[in-house]
Amino acid sequence: MKKNMNIAIVGLGNIGSYFYNYLKKNRNIIFNKTNVTPIIKYISARSFSKKRTVKIPKSLWLKNYLDATKSKDIDIIVELIGGAEGAAKKLVFAALKNKKHVITANKALVAKYGDQLARIAEKNKVNFEFEAAVCGGIPIIRSIKEGLIANQINKIYGILNGTSNFILSSMDKNNLEYDVALKKAQELGFAESDPSADINGEDVSSKLKILTALSFNSFINNNSILVEGIKNVDQTDIHNANQLGYKIKLLGIAERKDKKIIQRVHPVLIKQNSYTAKIDGVLNAVVVESSPVGQTVLQGEGAGPGPTTSALVSDLCSVLRGNIKFPFVISNSKRTKSIFETIDEKNFSVYLRIDVKDKYGVLSNITKVMANNKVSVKRLIQNPTNNKNVASIIIITHVGKNSSFVKVLKTLSKKNYMVKKPKFIRIENIL
Amino acid sequence: MKKNMNIAIVGLGNIGSYFYNYLKKNRNIIFNKTNVTPIIKYISARSFSKKRTVKIPKSLWLKNYLDATKSKDIDIIVELIGGAEGAAKKLVFAALKNKKHVITANKALVAKYGDQLARIAEKNKVNFEFEAAVCGGIPIIRSIKEGLIANQINKIYGILNGTSNFILSSMDKNNLEYDVALKKAQELGFAESDPSADINGEDVSSKLKILTALSFNSFINNNSILVEGIKNVDQTDIHNANQLGYKIKLLGIAERKDKKIIQRVHPVLIKQNSYTAKIDGVLNAVVVESSPVGQTVLQGEGAGPGPTTSALVSDLCSVLRGNIKFPFVISNSKRTKSIFETIDEKNFSVYLRIDVKDKYGVLSNITKVMANNKVSVKRLIQNPTNNKNVASIIIITHVGKNSSFVKVLKTLSKKNYMVKKPKFIRIENIL
Repeated sequence: MKKNMNIAIVGLGNIGSYFYNYLKKNRNIIFNKTNVTPIIKYISARSFSKKRTVKIPKSLWLKNYLDATKSKDIDIIVELIGGAEGAAKKLVFAALKNKKHVITANKALVAKYGDQLARIAEKNKVNFEFEAAVCGGIPIIRSIKEGLIANQINKIYGILNGTSNFILSSMDKNNLEYDVALKKAQELGFAESDPSADINGEDVSSKLKILTALSFNSFINNNSILVEGIKNVDQTDIHNANQLGYKIKLLGIAERKDKKIIQRVHPVLIKQNSYTAKIDGVLNAVVVESSPVGQTVLQGEGAGPGPTTSALVSDLCSVLRGNIKFPFVISNSKRTKSIFETIDEKNFSVYLRIDVKDKYGVLSNITKVMANNKVSVKRLIQNPTNNKNVASIIIITHVGKNSSFVKVLKTLSKKNYMVKKPKFIRIENIL
Repeated sequence: MKKNMNIAIVGLGNIGSYFYNYLKKNRNIIFNKTNVTPIIKYISARSFSKKRTVKIPKSLWLKNYLDATKSKDIDIIVELIGGAEGAAKKLVFAALKNKKHVITANKALVAKYGDQLARIAEKNKVNFEFEAAVCGGIPIIRSIKEGLIANQINKIYGILNGTSNFILSSMDKNNLEYDVALKKAQELGFAESDPSADINGEDVSSKLKILTALSFNSFINNNSILVEGIKNVDQTDIHNANQLGYKIKLLGIAERKDKKIIQRVHPVLIKQNSYTAKIDGVLNAVVVESSPVGQTVLQGEGAGPGPTTSALVSDLCSVLRGNIKFPFVISNSKRTKSIFETIDEKNFSVYLRIDVKDKYGVLSNITKVMANNKVSVKRLIQNPTNNKNVASIIIITHVGKNSSFVKVLKTLSKKNYMVKKPKFIRIENIL
């Protein structure tokens, strides 16, 4: 076992700077816990980055980041560039091919190329670690790979994106419209200037794909996943949900029944007094349902330099301790080609919102469209609007197929009595 | 690296039987995840045990359990006997001395002899693993040792005993008296026929001592810990707490300030709408406050064969993977002799309950006793009782020293207007 291991950090934004400072300060503590001293040997980052808060000695500076993958001096490469393509992709592939351990916080890269990268890592007997890619402050990957290793996981779900959760919480608690809540998140540093990946569900989708592969010993699947963001949720929906005893949250959900897996990311209505409904602001929470352990819940901060560094260091200590593991729990040769199904045939009860011209026969027509598609009303509320010629109809349905609701919406959209695009939000009965 | 590792299971009650069956069924799955096959080589248990649900082949049966520690055939010993002394102690000491890896679910043993055992394990380079000793269904030990390894923990607390939590929940939800709730727990198999260790806080105390040593890199401390159980909580307290907006829970709490550590186990009043207040029934929950990650929460089933087996197998896989770690996160030589303080000087706001004869001057005398001890009233409620000569006075105090409240109680106890022993329950402001 080596006494020291040399590290190259590539990427020096908020996370990289925090991680660098942490390592400098806590070298001895890490040695005490692993018997190996981590030495920062090289740092590389875009030279034109905005003013850095951290001062890097010249001797550490590496001009060409790819040199780190070839250097005999380097044992571990920490990739903090981000993005599924370009520099990050080049770096991680080259590093693993050259038998360097890799630690990354890059969910997009792992979700897209994780299977290929895991194959190379296993072949070359190096670590490929990505705890920081999924809910930094929650040790969910390590828990699946170690603490819960005995269990067959049947379902994993949770609030996996702090930005969208902050926006939904603000809309709910402060009665803000979507745009105002988003702006507030940006001002507080909880949303980026281009917030699209957080808002449209893409960020959750990447995290969920990784969790799915880890949970079900399957390969990563990019095809059959439903991804809906929070852009279509407005203040009226939030208000309606409250009136009906629900909260609206953006969830990532993966579940296995027999050998079929469904992955989905979409807003849901969940009971107001449920555990998940109370996860507010930038918090994340993950619920794992597995056998024999039952239901396990993990909650913590999802992002930010501190939580992400916590995850990166946990990966680092695993490497230092020589704990080489299969990146996705089991050997690539043993991972299964599971059957991934779309959401089409899955049954839901949904919240249906239909804004219509207030005239004779409309309600009758709507309920007929529903009946034609084998969808039935459980609860119906017709609210007057500010415009007395327009009515907002809210329907909580009985259980029906997802594809049926899609058909109902499609048919209703074409009706000349519609004043807005109709929409539905699925209702989930969860912890 | 070995291809197979041989296991001796000693103790074959509910847990042992479940674990044995699990291993038999899941041998291949464990191999897929660790590259090593676990082989059950020997089983030993008291021959006079009640009818076993599990059939053990004669070839596995070991007459003298201590032979397992001497056998060259055996790599890993799983101790499921229980108790801090006697057979369990003999077995674990002998096993580690003979360089066998040890996995145990025995919190009493680890809390009492954990430091000595860890020293032997470290010297002999074998694993000493005890995830199953603390909240079986929650991978809290592995999370402290791996997932949260980067963090300096300042406080760790939670609901660590399912039996007492079930009793308090039943008293609250079903308006049961303590004795009735306990009987119900026993009927459902959630409390043993002798429930004393669960009820008097001893079980929580063992778990907390282990968590303290893990969290603060200290040695196990048995002296300065306050241990109060739930026996003195009655239906009236539960009712009063509800009226005041609180719930009563039994918590284990360890916190570090500067280099001083306080460990305590006692019932608390916590806000009704807090997260911890909603952990009901046999569930356990642990909250870790640490830097840089912030607040992390883990929740799951605390006990029972399934959750405990989940923990045992996670330990087993760690051993199979060759991941030899310091049993208490860092080397024994690096563990610190922390200063453990009693609760005396700590400040609390408390719920004070004083049942008195309803006559002139009593309230004035009580408040005088309080003032003499620098304790002041924040809120006072005097409830009439069924006996019109007796009044029940409930006081929520401002913050005061623990030792002051003890003095107040001592002084009040001697007053001739008391009709019951006065009591106080500390109020905690937690997640």
